[in-house]
Amino acid sequence: MEERVIVSGMRPTGKLHLGHYFGVIRNWLKLQEEEGGKYIFIADWHALTTAYTQTQELKRNIEELMLDWISCGLNPDRNILFIQSQVKEHAELHLLFSMITPKSWLELNPTYKDLKYNLLKLGEIKEKFAHLAERTVKEIIQKLEIKIEAPKLLEEILKEYLAEGITKALFEGAIERELLKELNIDKKALYSVDTYGFLGYPVLQAADILIYKGNTVPVGEDQLPHVELTREIARRFNRLYGETFPEPEALLTETPKVVGIDGRKMSKSYNNAIYLSDTEEEVTQKVGKMVTDPQRIRKTDPGRPQICPVFTLHKLFTDKQTLKTIEEDCQKAQIGCVQCKQILAKNINTFLQPMRERRNYYASRSSELWDIFREGAKKARERAQETMEEVRQKMNIP
Amino acid sequence: MEERVIVSGMRPTGKLHLGHYFGVIRNWLKLQEEEGGKYIFIADWHALTTAYTQTQELKRNIEELMLDWISCGLNPDRNILFIQSQVKEHAELHLLFSMITPKSWLELNPTYKDLKYNLLKLGEIKEKFAHLAERTVKEIIQKLEIKIEAPKLLEEILKEYLAEGITKALFEGAIERELLKELNIDKKALYSVDTYGFLGYPVLQAADILIYKGNTVPVGEDQLPHVELTREIARRFNRLYGETFPEPEALLTETPKVVGIDGRKMSKSYNNAIYLSDTEEEVTQKVGKMVTDPQRIRKTDPGRPQICPVFTLHKLFTDKQTLKTIEEDCQKAQIGCVQCKQILAKNINTFLQPMRERRNYYASRSSELWDIFREGAKKARERAQETMEEVRQKMNIP
Repeated sequence: MEERVIVSGMRPTGKLHLGHYFGVIRNWLKLQEEEGGKYIFIADWHALTTAYTQTQELKRNIEELMLDWISCGLNPDRNILFIQSQVKEHAELHLLFSMITPKSWLELNPTYKDLKYNLLKLGEIKEKFAHLAERTVKEIIQKLEIKIEAPKLLEEILKEYLAEGITKALFEGAIERELLKELNIDKKALYSVDTYGFLGYPVLQAADILIYKGNTVPVGEDQLPHVELTREIARRFNRLYGETFPEPEALLTETPKVVGIDGRKMSKSYNNAIYLSDTEEEVTQKVGKMVTDPQRIRKTDPGRPQICPVFTLHKLFTDKQTLKTIEEDCQKAQIGCVQCKQILAKNINTFLQPMRERRNYYASRSSELWDIFREGAKKARERAQETMEEVRQKMNIP
Repeated sequence: MEERVIVSGMRPTGKLHLGHYFGVIRNWLKLQEEEGGKYIFIADWHALTTAYTQTQELKRNIEELMLDWISCGLNPDRNILFIQSQVKEHAELHLLFSMITPKSWLELNPTYKDLKYNLLKLGEIKEKFAHLAERTVKEIIQKLEIKIEAPKLLEEILKEYLAEGITKALFEGAIERELLKELNIDKKALYSVDTYGFLGYPVLQAADILIYKGNTVPVGEDQLPHVELTREIARRFNRLYGETFPEPEALLTETPKVVGIDGRKMSKSYNNAIYLSDTEEEVTQKVGKMVTDPQRIRKTDPGRPQICPVFTLHKLFTDKQTLKTIEEDCQKAQIGCVQCKQILAKNINTFLQPMRERRNYYASRSSELWDIFREGAKKARERAQETMEEVRQKMNIP
C-alpha cells in the first residue's frame, strides 16, 4: 500500500478561535500521531484571492498563525510546517496546470459561483432580473428553429446568462445609477472581486496538493468540490503526459458545532469568538457574558441544557461525569447559570493552559518561529523540486 | 532619463524562416547595438497556452530556436538570452498579478476573443444562432420593466451571451449530434482550447515584461492590446501597493512584407517558406519554383515587377543599383525570370552565408548553446529576484 501523504493549509486571516481549533487543528493534532508525510502550510497566496487590497496585515497575520499553530502543539518534527509563498514551485506548477485546465471546470465550480455571488451581492439583482426575463426567455426557446435535445437545460443556461449579462451591463454603465443605488451596489467592488486569480484558486489548490503527491486531503464537506477538481486535474495531467500524480482522496473530518458567546456559530465576523490567545480573564469575562436559555430568568426556573449555548460548549471542555451532573442540576434548577459559567470558564482555561505556556515562550522568540517555518519550507522545497523535475521531464520542458 | 530596458520573446514553434528574420530578428539585431538592458527569451511556457497537448517537440523546438538565434548573430554579450521556464520568478509574479487582474480585462481583450473564436471555429455557429435569436432578444429588451440607459449596448451583450450560451450547450451535450456534425465541430477540441491559462496569457506576458522593469517592448501592431494590458496591470499594482513598475511603451517595429514562394505571406503553415536553416541547394530550388507575374508567359513578354513575388524578395536582398536594373530589364523583357531568380537565390545565399557558418559551428556543439542560455537565465534570475524582493516587500509577503 502506498504511504499516506497529507496536505492541508489555512489562510492567514487573523488569530484563531475555538471554532478553528475544533474544526481543523484538532484533526491535524490527531493526524500528526500517525505515520506518513504531513505538509501543513500557511496559504498566504490564497489569502490574496479575496483580500489583495488589504495586505497591510498579511505579514502580521502570518506571524500570528505561526504562533497559534505552534501553541496548539503542532509539532515541527512530525509535520512539515511552512509558508506557501516560500515554496515558489507551487507557483510554477500552478502555471503549468493553468494551461491544461478547461476554464469551464472553474466556472462551473459551485464554490466559485457561490462565493462570487455572495461577494458581489448579486443575489438580489439576479433574482429581480431573472423574474422579468423568464417569460420572454421561454419564448426564445420556442422560436428557435433548431431542435434542442434538452430544452430545460438550455433554458437554465439562458436564464443564468441573462443575469450575467446584467452584471456586464453594470460594468459598462448601461444600467441606471439610481437602480444601483437602490440595490446598494458598489460598482467598483463588483469589478475588483472577480479577478483572474479568484477564478483560478482551485488550480492553485491542486498545485499545493499535487506538488507533494498528496493523496489525502482533510476537508470539511463544503470543500469536497475542490478536492474533486484536484482529482480531475491530476487525471488530465496523467492522461496527457503519463502517470505522474495520485488522485487524492478527501478525508472528511469531524467538525463539531462550536457556538460563540451569542449562541450563533463562532466567527470572527460575528464578534462572538473566544480566541486561543485570550487571557484567563478574557475567557472568564466572555463566558460570563454568554447567552443562556432565555426562558430561565430566575435561578429557581428549571433550565434546558439542550438549547443552552453554555452547555453546548461544556460538551467540548468538561468531563462526562461533571457534564451529566450539570445537565441534571440545571434541569432541576439546582445549579445557577453563574456557577455553570464559572465551571466552563475554568475548564476552557485549563484546556488553554498548555497553549498559553508555549505561546509565552515563542511570543518573545519570534525568530525561532520563523526558523521553524523556514526549515519546513526547505524540506517542502526539496520534495517539490523532485516533483517539478519529473513534471518538466514528462512535459518536455528543459 | 531612465535607461531603456527592452523585453521581448518568441514562442518555440519550429525553425525560423525569412519572415521571422525581417519581422522580429532584424529589429533585435539593430537594438543590440544600442545601450540599455535587453532581455530576449524563448517563451516555452507561452507555447503551452495553445499547444499543451503537443509537447513531444517542445525541447527540440527550443534547441532549434536557440540555434537559429545564435546563427542570426544575436550576441550573448549584448543581450540576456534565456529560456522563460528557467526563470521561475516569472511564474511567481504571474501568480501575484493573477490576483489583481480583473477577469473582465482578459475576456474583453480583442486578441483573446479573436483567437478563441478562430480556434473554436465558432464564427459559423455564432452567426447561425445569432440570427435566429435576434428577433426574440429584441422582445426581451422591450418587455424589461426596468429602464435601460443604453438599450443598444445591452442588446449587443445579450446577443453575444446567447451565442456563448450555445457554446455551453454544446459542452453539455444539449445540442443535437447531427447539428455538430453538419457544422464540422469537434466537441472535444472546443473544450480543450479554452483553458484557464489561455485566458490568462496576457497576465503571464505582463509578468515577463515587468519582472525586469521593462519599459520598452518591440511589437507589431497586432500586439498593441497586450502591451496596453501590461500597462494597466502595472498601473493597478502601483496604485494598490505603491510605485513599483514602469508602464512599458510599445516600440512599433518595421515589419516589411515577406512573401513566400507562392506569393502569399511567408508562413510555415502555407508550406511556402524559405528557412534560415535551408541549404544553398534548397534555397536555389525554392526560389526556382517561385511564382512570377502570371501574365509574363514568354521571356519576350514585358514583366510587371511591382506585382512579382520574386521582385518583392529582391527588395530585401539585392543592392539598389542591381534592383533598378532588374526592374527596368524586366519591364523591357531584357531579363528572363530564370536569370532573375538565379540572382535572387545567389543574393539570399550570400545573405545566409554568415548564419550558416555560425550554425555549422554550434550544430555540433549544442552543449555550448545550452550554456549560453543557462548563463543568460542566471543573469535574468538575479534581476528577477531583485524585483520579486521589492514586490513581496510592498505586498507584505514574508
